Amino acid sequence: MSSQYANLRLAVLQANLALPKFDLVVFTWGNVSAVDREQGVMAIKPSGVAYDELRAEHIVVLRLEDGHIVEGDLRPSSDTATHLYLYQQFPELGGITHTHSRWAVARAQAGLDLPAYGTTHADHFYGAVPCTRELNAAEIEGDYELNTGLVIGETFRTRQIDPTAVPAVLVAGHGPFAFGKTAMDSVHNAVVLNECCLMASETERNNPEVKPISQVLLDKHYFRKHGSAAYYGQESE
Amino acid sequence: MSSQYANLRLAVLQANLALPKFDLVVFTWGNVSAVDREQGVMAIKPSGVAYDELRAEHIVVLRLEDGHIVEGDLRPSSDTATHLYLYQQFPELGGITHTHSRWAVARAQAGLDLPAYGTTHADHFYGAVPCTRELNAAEIEGDYELNTGLVIGETFRTRQIDPTAVPAVLVAGHGPFAFGKTAMDSVHNAVVLNECCLMASETERNNPEVKPISQVLLDKHYFRKHGSAAYYGQESE
Amino acid sequence: MSSQYANLRLAVLQANLALPKFDLVVFTWGNVSAVDREQGVMAIKPSGVAYDELRAEHIVVLRLEDGHIVEGDLRPSSDTATHLYLYQQFPELGGITHTHSRWAVARAQAGLDLPAYGTTHADHFYGAVPCTRELNAAEIEGDYELNTGLVIGETFRTRQIDPTAVPAVLVAGHGPFAFGKTAMDSVHNAVVLNECCLMASETERNNPEVKPISQVLLDKHYFRKHGSAAYYGQESE
Amino acid sequence: MSSQYANLRLAVLQANLALPKFDLVVFTWGNVSAVDREQGVMAIKPSGVAYDELRAEHIVVLRLEDGHIVEGDLRPSSDTATHLYLYQQFPELGGITHTHSRWAVARAQAGLDLPAYGTTHADHFYGAVPCTRELNAAEIEGDYELNTGLVIGETFRTRQIDPTAVPAVLVAGHGPFAFGKTAMDSVHNAVVLNECCLMASETERNNPEVKPISQVLLDKHYFRKHGSAAYYGQESE
Repeated sequence: MSSQYANLRLAVLQANLALPKFDLVVFTWGNVSAVDREQGVMAIKPSGVAYDELRAEHIVVLRLEDGHIVEGDLRPSSDTATHLYLYQQFPELGGITHTHSRWAVARAQAGLDLPAYGTTHADHFYGAVPCTRELNAAEIEGDYELNTGLVIGETFRTRQIDPTAVPAVLVAGHGPFAFGKTAMDSVHNAVVLNECCLMASETERNNPEVKPISQVLLDKHYFRKHGSAAYYGQESE
Repeated sequence: MSSQYANLRLAVLQANLALPKFDLVVFTWGNVSAVDREQGVMAIKPSGVAYDELRAEHIVVLRLEDGHIVEGDLRPSSDTATHLYLYQQFPELGGITHTHSRWAVARAQAGLDLPAYGTTHADHFYGAVPCTRELNAAEIEGDYELNTGLVIGETFRTRQIDPTAVPAVLVAGHGPFAFGKTAMDSVHNAVVLNECCLMASETERNNPEVKPISQVLLDKHYFRKHGSAAYYGQESE
Repeated sequence: MSSQYANLRLAVLQANLALPKFDLVVFTWGNVSAVDREQGVMAIKPSGVAYDELRAEHIVVLRLEDGHIVEGDLRPSSDTATHLYLYQQFPELGGITHTHSRWAVARAQAGLDLPAYGTTHADHFYGAVPCTRELNAAEIEGDYELNTGLVIGETFRTRQIDPTAVPAVLVAGHGPFAFGKTAMDSVHNAVVLNECCLMASETERNNPEVKPISQVLLDKHYFRKHGSAAYYGQESE
Repeated sequence: MSSQYANLRLAVLQANLALPKFDLVVFTWGNVSAVDREQGVMAIKPSGVAYDELRAEHIVVLRLEDGHIVEGDLRPSSDTATHLYLYQQFPELGGITHTHSRWAVARAQAGLDLPAYGTTHADHFYGAVPCTRELNAAEIEGDYELNTGLVIGETFRTRQIDPTAVPAVLVAGHGPFAFGKTAMDSVHNAVVLNECCLMASETERNNPEVKPISQVLLDKHYFRKHGSAAYYGQESE
């Protein structure tokens, strides 16, 4: 595996192996991909392979333009068309994580946005994480995985949300997709999303009248960690 | 233990040992069985033996026809009559797992079906997982474990549910039984059932008005993974 | 430590060490004792000693009649007077476990009995686990730990509950005490109690109208495991 | 690192490493500091450094009077101004822990005090743990971290709460700060706070009418463990 995609495959392998480590997956219920825009390819977990058997040579590499498999002997994740569409539509995305993590799935099943109830959320997501509308019958019966991507894209565009500022979405009745600059960065956001979903539900039960934090506090925490004026972490980060 | 049932016993041992690994049991609160229809026997965990002491020679082998013990020195699980009846009535079943896993027990105690609120559920269960009616006094005071099997059978038949398409049931006031093609496959479904029960309750709390997903989405996800048109996983699976 | 109490101390040590193993305690929030009625002594964990530093010689042995310390250099658990009173009043008890396990504490703080909502409960407790009344100001300001024992005793007597058939109690605003034939048996019941409290709360949230199981089902499951007609487990158990 | 601050840095390192051990943090979401009042300095975790890479030489030492960095090459925690203010205002504090632990954050996001619902709470906090008011826009847009400290200080002063008797606070819409005599003692209180928040929410759900425990019981348990008449633990503690 001394191919031109070795680094990409290794990054995708490591990000997928982080899913069970962070307790985001049961069995094979998740997949992480990454894109290499210079080489015009994306790499993704193969479908239905157990994490403890996954090796770099199992990772499937596809042409970003049309999804043609350029390396790998296994069938790619059944959600590949969703990932591919998102990379095509949002050129800022470098990695995507899809899981069935329990607290994010529960909110997606409830069909609810994840409001920004506190600074933990604001440190990572610049506003509510949106929940998509449900796919209609034609979208489900047609090219389902592609249409899942289309509905995600529609959600960000019609609601004028920037997927780099709010790098996650809940697909109604399904579950979460998280984005990142890299494969591992998208896993990081998937962890945060799941934790924020748990804390949000607990917050709502503690206080059914709770309101999202103010725009001022959202701005403060988000820009403490992101953008040119960030002052969280070390200079080199 | 070079007997004709060695493979069957080993499969049942390994499936029982998976219960604590998947955090489905406290103490000895669970049992897995498997059937070998060619040899006309089922094998099951002995009653009340701790998982960390369980060995293949402890597994009890019984004649499928009448429950006569054909191998094993220990008393079989007190739930043996339930397993036996289900194998007799549903020739498609290869393995059965009974546990007191917390989220599935809570729903069974609540006496509620587990609705299909999302694709995690639809990937594994083709519709709501049914909850049985309560056993009546005569059924409890009579041959209780057999009657538990009868009420499970009644539930699937009167509600016209196929136990291979919905491979699990909640016994009201008691807990879950999960089915599978093999012992380990039934453990797999027991894990999914418990996780879906947790996510369903959280979903209902997040949104008390939540409705099950559409039949179209249920079909899409179920048949993505099951049947001749499945396209999840690798060809050989 | 070749004393006449070595076995008793060892049993109490091992039972106390089981508390963190079963995730029943945070820091030092629990204690287990056992009684040796032939020798007229009880043994208990010393107060405020961390579990990972606890050794058999730390276990304190007291005269059952009057609580006089007969062996051990450390101060016994601050709850010793409660344990002592319970052993004096209920000659069937062989071990007592007190913890601040989260789900049992939550129900005790809520001031509610733990109803028998299912067979998991019925396998271990022959009816609802009672919650005591609150101690009054005089009882708290007086000999508090002894009075805690008195209120527990009052609860079992006035409600005509047998502490060997329902081997646990919730002290209102405080937390659980579990009983057993031995120190380790009381730990076992403390684990079951905590798990049943979690499942009961989840059951009530799933179905606010839920009722306890029938007396017939309670009888069936309890006597399947207890008494002369029990048929759960192996003969020698 | 044979400096005059080596012991302080080591204590702060060890306390920070205890955060993941006690499951209080996800990623780098927490920081512990300690003060050395004789030397007039405080030491704190550097900003955004992963716990598994943290070493004593990373710990930043600042002058207590003005926050000037006197040792350490890394940028201190972004919450340093909050810690510094609290040490300046409350001379009894020796250590401070800030985390985003899930149950404490949920209550802070709900904007609610943590009432004393039971003896677990009373053993550690002499009354309700207060939740601050929300910071206003000017406070957020100004010197935010200093103002967070000011609002915490205001909370304790206007409500006449002694931060050594109630060594924790919930910052509305943000999360918990816990105090202690030492860095590790503040971690201990952060663990207790998170656990008590979980138990309180579960208590409220079990019984929406629940009231805090009586002042008499609060006194009894708090002074059993604190002050000159304490009788919990060993003499030397």
